[in-house]
Amino acid sequence: MAQPLTDVAIAQAHALEPITEIADRAGIPRDAVVAYGRNKAKVDITRLGNTRPEGKLILVTGISPTPAGEGKSTVLIGLTDAMTRLGRKAAAALREPSQGPVMGVKGGAAGGGYSQIVPMEEINLHFTGDFHAISAATNTLAAIVDNHVQQGNVLGIDSRRIVWQRCIDVNDRSLRDVVTGLGGPAHGTPRETGFTITAASEIMAVLCLASDLADLKDRLSRLTVAFTFDDEPVTAGELGVTGALAALMKDAINPNLVQTLGGTPAYVHGGPFANIAHGCNSLIATRVALQHADVVLTEAGFGSDLGAEKFFDIKARSGGLDVNGAVIVATIRSLKYNGGMPRDELTREDLDFLRAGVKNLARHVSNIQQFGVTPVVALNLFTSDTPAERAFMKAWAKDFTVPLAEVEVWAKGGEGAEDLARLVLDNLSKKSTSLYDPSKGVEKSIETIAKRIYRAERVEYSAKARKDLAVLKANGWDTLPVCISKTPYSFSDDPAQLGAPTGHTLHVRELIPRTGAGFVVALTGAVMTMPGLPSRPAADNIDIDVDGKISGLF
Amino acid sequence: MAQPLTDVAIAQAHALEPITEIADRAGIPRDAVVAYGRNKAKVDITRLGNTRPEGKLILVTGISPTPAGEGKSTVLIGLTDAMTRLGRKAAAALREPSQGPVMGVKGGAAGGGYSQIVPMEEINLHFTGDFHAISAATNTLAAIVDNHVQQGNVLGIDSRRIVWQRCIDVNDRSLRDVVTGLGGPAHGTPRETGFTITAASEIMAVLCLASDLADLKDRLSRLTVAFTFDDEPVTAGELGVTGALAALMKDAINPNLVQTLGGTPAYVHGGPFANIAHGCNSLIATRVALQHADVVLTEAGFGSDLGAEKFFDIKARSGGLDVNGAVIVATIRSLKYNGGMPRDELTREDLDFLRAGVKNLARHVSNIQQFGVTPVVALNLFTSDTPAERAFMKAWAKDFTVPLAEVEVWAKGGEGAEDLARLVLDNLSKKSTSLYDPSKGVEKSIETIAKRIYRAERVEYSAKARKDLAVLKANGWDTLPVCISKTPYSFSDDPAQLGAPTGHTLHVRELIPRTGAGFVVALTGAVMTMPGLPSRPAADNIDIDVDGKISGLF
Repeated sequence: MAQPLTDVAIAQAHALEPITEIADRAGIPRDAVVAYGRNKAKVDITRLGNTRPEGKLILVTGISPTPAGEGKSTVLIGLTDAMTRLGRKAAAALREPSQGPVMGVKGGAAGGGYSQIVPMEEINLHFTGDFHAISAATNTLAAIVDNHVQQGNVLGIDSRRIVWQRCIDVNDRSLRDVVTGLGGPAHGTPRETGFTITAASEIMAVLCLASDLADLKDRLSRLTVAFTFDDEPVTAGELGVTGALAALMKDAINPNLVQTLGGTPAYVHGGPFANIAHGCNSLIATRVALQHADVVLTEAGFGSDLGAEKFFDIKARSGGLDVNGAVIVATIRSLKYNGGMPRDELTREDLDFLRAGVKNLARHVSNIQQFGVTPVVALNLFTSDTPAERAFMKAWAKDFTVPLAEVEVWAKGGEGAEDLARLVLDNLSKKSTSLYDPSKGVEKSIETIAKRIYRAERVEYSAKARKDLAVLKANGWDTLPVCISKTPYSFSDDPAQLGAPTGHTLHVRELIPRTGAGFVVALTGAVMTMPGLPSRPAADNIDIDVDGKISGLF
Repeated sequence: MAQPLTDVAIAQAHALEPITEIADRAGIPRDAVVAYGRNKAKVDITRLGNTRPEGKLILVTGISPTPAGEGKSTVLIGLTDAMTRLGRKAAAALREPSQGPVMGVKGGAAGGGYSQIVPMEEINLHFTGDFHAISAATNTLAAIVDNHVQQGNVLGIDSRRIVWQRCIDVNDRSLRDVVTGLGGPAHGTPRETGFTITAASEIMAVLCLASDLADLKDRLSRLTVAFTFDDEPVTAGELGVTGALAALMKDAINPNLVQTLGGTPAYVHGGPFANIAHGCNSLIATRVALQHADVVLTEAGFGSDLGAEKFFDIKARSGGLDVNGAVIVATIRSLKYNGGMPRDELTREDLDFLRAGVKNLARHVSNIQQFGVTPVVALNLFTSDTPAERAFMKAWAKDFTVPLAEVEVWAKGGEGAEDLARLVLDNLSKKSTSLYDPSKGVEKSIETIAKRIYRAERVEYSAKARKDLAVLKANGWDTLPVCISKTPYSFSDDPAQLGAPTGHTLHVRELIPRTGAGFVVALTGAVMTMPGLPSRPAADNIDIDVDGKISGLF
């Protein structure tokens, strides 16, 4: 086999359609299209009518992720193009990539091979500036908080209890723990704090859950930034900067429109982490897509236990969305890994490891069914997959009456996902449900998720978490939905427990109110909100020639 | 007099022409116009021919700035529109505003009244993302440096001598002095560092002095980030990230095109500080303007001693530009302040203070003449100016044969600067010169500027500066041009010495090589590279309504 082309080479060889033509095809009125160059646009939501969302929403998730990679975004994009090929008016609604990882381990999140969204270089580098706007709003608020303390501290903010962190869209481990305000009294109050990556910031979550500009302002005003010496929370609204923060987010709130390699409209907007936040693209983008397409493919970060559960219980509930179908992306390699096969042996045929690992898939299928949706399995083929392994998977699907289709999206684009598209269309449902009733309290919500989705035996709270619970109750925050931060690699909170563990204990270490986003984060392990760079960063390979052509992105 | 409209209200009441029409009128080929929405564009310099710059370049500077404000940008914009009104093909080349101060003390730098560039809200908030791209490149490089130390430190970087600072486009005093890398060995090496505001970053200066993408890459590769344990400088090029940094600057290198309220094209690109850097818009923007207009009005930060001197000696020399005319903006209020009148009395008629203060203007006139250009004085009128004061100024100009015109640009736009425009066109010259020959060494360059421009008697070096000088010489950096960082309020390094002091000593405290920008910064006082917020930040007033309309910007 010849050396395959790189993603960036495939993307650059493709003749893109002008974004105005994509917008026309999507049915976006011209006066709502704010072009950013020839191939990107923002959709001005104030210029859209109040069309009722009519499209069918398909949620794409995956089995528990593995180092082998499953190709979730690539399948989603190929599937979207397959829908177009079948004559459906389709659209994708996706997260936008964080620039930090582009310079770090890997290159972005715009699909791969012949299933990509383009222009991939621009999507991966700055895009339309949404992440920068979020960083600017986050860091302006941080400066306002410290300045309030510096300039008389009328609200009585306890500088030891400023909970608002700065953020930056760079992988920079040195900013995880810092001391600011050094240099003497003219330069602020020394205090310990840290930076998160922008994708992990609360304003990212706010952007992604806001229904419009008015709701964005409400959420921004509710952001908790500190506590007073009297234990009272202090909000951005009390600091008087809601309007300024919203003004900084004026363009960021509008969804971005690009295209797939198959020429299908793709709304790429918002990119919250799937651990500390809910991990899916903006509600606004999903709604705009549903108002203008018959079938909308959208992605949830990680598997059914993380991204999908949060999609149903946080995003869909908050935004009044119904999910009409779901796809679980799996690969034979990743299933074998989940069955215990060592990473460096995954290309070897082994039905025993596959049989053990398929339990992970079965668990994800069962989880999705609990939300009232019939999941379809997309088996993303790799060259190392053997006929026996593929036959095993088909037999398994038949035995358990799980709809399954093989896909070849990297090499074939939409053509490689037509079977999957037909299967998805055959398994649509009308409504979806959520799992728990937040009004019963955070403990009950966590218990329900832990038992029904993670299949844990019990939930244990640390002393810190117990204390946090009291704060939640004292401030009326304990009826917010819960966003559990857990390792994606296991259904349990122990990343080493692959497959489909049961009988385990979920350890809640800390509960963090996100009063702007409108959920409570429950930490069940060490959560990384600021990645580091590897010994050989991806930035080493990136270059640009004198004509402005970028290379080495992947 | 009725309450005048605010700048933002005037700007919003104006019907903007589509930016494509402005580009057509400017003569920019359509395929080089990269629209950012309806009213902003970037000019793709790779799509422009190699037209020889033919336009006349007029440098607008001012007297020594005062708290009363002189309205330099407003005069420049009004003058540009006046040129258009006189039938000239005119363009403005201006710095873009930093967002930090927009949230802080005042609202941006897009002119005022009926002499503004528009859309002012968008120019002041994010614009086309250039500042964000510079921050991203700066902070990516910072992360790469710390990561190099973390991952084995092959180059032997002394972490105590990492000179590369992070930056952020927020006024945040708490970030001036910080300790990063806390939290244990997995999170970097603890060290003291700080953030500057993005306008003060070296990559901002690099962007503004680069002649094209290839030159940008050269300059980025030469950035000095640290010293080794063996006292050797370490550059961005040695860290292997030149290509990645240039890729992050791919769009930022292209000048932004907007319009004045009079419909004249304005290239607004780059915004370096005028103390730590050279304080004028990008060379690329100035060149593109000169290639497409007959008369180009451009601005130098502060007065003839700072922005203008650096324009001639750094930017014009580096870019092979000739300046054909100059305007010195003065107001009667500011001249009286320079003559010693207390700030709260400036609206009172006083010819004695005016007579004393006009010496400041005379000094600026004489300074500009040394560069081979005939300066024209623009007397920017205020309602408090009295007939006697105006008569005094006219008589002074006649006595000293200095061309002077009164302007009323805030209230009248271009119409209020037609006399000035005619005077400028009557006083054009063919060539300009620079003041010193950098090859004679930094000390000689500083001495020449100090004696001929600042009219100092002598230059004294601190012990630290002497040590720095040895480093410059050891590394072959002492023949770079010099960028003197000095208070703008006085020709001396003492901000209290207003008017036209002589006989003073210039104290050089520190010499900082900027090997990417290609100059040596000479600090002559405490220099602020990160502003703070005031007790009542401008952010308090900013708001946005549900239709996306911004208010309170000024």
